[in-house]
Amino acid sequence: MGELPRNLTHRVMVGSVPVGGGAPVSVQTMLSTPTSDVELALSEIARVVDLGCEIVRLAIPSEAELEPFGRICEASPLPVVADIHFDYKLAIGAAKRGASKLRINPGNIGGTDRVDAVLDAAGEAGIPIRIGVNGGSLEQRLRDAEGMSLPEKLAASVEGFVEHFESRGFGDIVVSAKAHDVPTTVETYRMLSKRLPGVPLHIGVTEAGTLRQGTVKASVGLGILLAEGIGDTLRVSLTGSIDDEVLVGWEILQACGLRRRTPELVSCPTCGRTQIDLIPIAEEVAARLARISKPIKVAVMGCVVNGPGEAADADIGIAGGKGEGLIFAHGEVLRKVPEPEIVEALFDEIGKL
Amino acid sequence: MGELPRNLTHRVMVGSVPVGGGAPVSVQTMLSTPTSDVELALSEIARVVDLGCEIVRLAIPSEAELEPFGRICEASPLPVVADIHFDYKLAIGAAKRGASKLRINPGNIGGTDRVDAVLDAAGEAGIPIRIGVNGGSLEQRLRDAEGMSLPEKLAASVEGFVEHFESRGFGDIVVSAKAHDVPTTVETYRMLSKRLPGVPLHIGVTEAGTLRQGTVKASVGLGILLAEGIGDTLRVSLTGSIDDEVLVGWEILQACGLRRRTPELVSCPTCGRTQIDLIPIAEEVAARLARISKPIKVAVMGCVVNGPGEAADADIGIAGGKGEGLIFAHGEVLRKVPEPEIVEALFDEIGKL
Repeated sequence: MGELPRNLTHRVMVGSVPVGGGAPVSVQTMLSTPTSDVELALSEIARVVDLGCEIVRLAIPSEAELEPFGRICEASPLPVVADIHFDYKLAIGAAKRGASKLRINPGNIGGTDRVDAVLDAAGEAGIPIRIGVNGGSLEQRLRDAEGMSLPEKLAASVEGFVEHFESRGFGDIVVSAKAHDVPTTVETYRMLSKRLPGVPLHIGVTEAGTLRQGTVKASVGLGILLAEGIGDTLRVSLTGSIDDEVLVGWEILQACGLRRRTPELVSCPTCGRTQIDLIPIAEEVAARLARISKPIKVAVMGCVVNGPGEAADADIGIAGGKGEGLIFAHGEVLRKVPEPEIVEALFDEIGKL
Repeated sequence: MGELPRNLTHRVMVGSVPVGGGAPVSVQTMLSTPTSDVELALSEIARVVDLGCEIVRLAIPSEAELEPFGRICEASPLPVVADIHFDYKLAIGAAKRGASKLRINPGNIGGTDRVDAVLDAAGEAGIPIRIGVNGGSLEQRLRDAEGMSLPEKLAASVEGFVEHFESRGFGDIVVSAKAHDVPTTVETYRMLSKRLPGVPLHIGVTEAGTLRQGTVKASVGLGILLAEGIGDTLRVSLTGSIDDEVLVGWEILQACGLRRRTPELVSCPTCGRTQIDLIPIAEEVAARLARISKPIKVAVMGCVVNGPGEAADADIGIAGGKGEGLIFAHGEVLRKVPEPEIVEALFDEIGKL
């Protein structure tokens, strides 16, 4: 795809993280632990920081969570976004207690006056608001509208809110409009990126499902959008761990060639020619590479005949033979080692790079 | 994305499975067991048939595998493709022993005469040939060519072979040109689809890596291509189980809205509002749905407040509360059940649909 085009949106700051305006596409997640448990939340945040998470979101379901939310914001190494539904007072409270961004659906916050009170609070705190609409929470007016497709309804909902925000002089906006199916999500974001060209887009497929289905839906949907230059920050939604959400988010950016965090692993799918137990070897290599930040390409190949040649562009690699393996670099064989020593030998060589 | 455009290629038959010409995009895998073990191969094939695999490929590394290959072809419920490198005699042998397709890289089979002998054998057997080129096995001439990008080299390699095949009157062709990075793979297939508009394309990202990375790379790469109408049959390459290759292949087609095999699962990512242990419930539902072929949409939502509304388009769903859950259909609550009974109650309702 060569150098991907990037739609140039204006830049919004989420704490210290820039979103839009040519900034790297950032990776977010949302905690699933109760916001009232400050220690647990902070330990979850510490874990996902190590995996590359850059922005974290927490739900504030009631007033009881406002005080602990404030303590989390104070201690968190990442900017914290407050996720608010229905009660505008919670949004105002979160803005006062250190939220780096608010996420609301202005359609379910209780009328224009209350939306405006939230805008005032965010303006005073100097933080952006994400207008987050999704397929299941459209305003009744649009839900009932005839002759409009769901992407058109979602885009119209967002556009209406953006117009209102801007008419009030509030331009510090990020928008999202997610559906739980990929074609609807892709179509909606294409419309938004055309109709609101300057507004940074938070992209995601909502309620995408369990680990496998959710990984595939997020990868297909966000991959298509990113390949078209659409998207400034992303969240992968999984009914699974937040670790997986962050890791999959990074894998999508790496697959698109947009950002790189860990060495690139090339590993063959094994076939009837493979005479070594390759899958556990590749999984071990993948797990160890996740802790290394050298921008190199590492190959794990199942056969000495095709391996070094097919992975000639790898900086370092192994190819499995019968009970032994080759270590190679840029297609040239360096040495032969017994099978049990192959992973250690590979990481010895990686250490020397 | 609405109705996806499909590039209209001509149709090739792989055994009883049509590829191209508007046929559904088929799902393939390649066995990693030794072809010499006929019983093991047949049991692997039986397993992936149940997961939706439609074409299966086996390696023939030496003459010793030809006889067992023939027995596998005879007993297999799926069309069997012979994967051949270097030795044209193995390709001829496979054609004679019941292969439904040959996969060769004409650049490594030993010169034009030998390629022509393979064409004659395939023509006699009435089977198609897949010209399978990849980044690591380009002809030296192209590998050394200056001023050409890798996608241009891969496309040129394929084009040269297609021209030669057609000049010999052999048109029963499928082509593939895979790289192990997504941007190169996407760019190459875009070129092939423009330059060889009638030729069916087998799409895939090669050596894509272990389960997570490989799933993401295949989903991003094949998702982008399928969304552009490119691709007639696919294989997901994972350093992992062939079961996962087939399941991920289907998830990609389902995510693109191209085909559907199982009910659609919508499940929320859980958040600080969730008061039920949702992840194991969703995984259990996903596993049980994989064995049901009703074309319905099923929702597993973590909260009784947002759940039924956000999943109003689901035919049936559950929403978790505190120790209990709601069963709902099209956004309307049917009944309340205790948490331990929630999955059973859901499948009771699915049974009634």
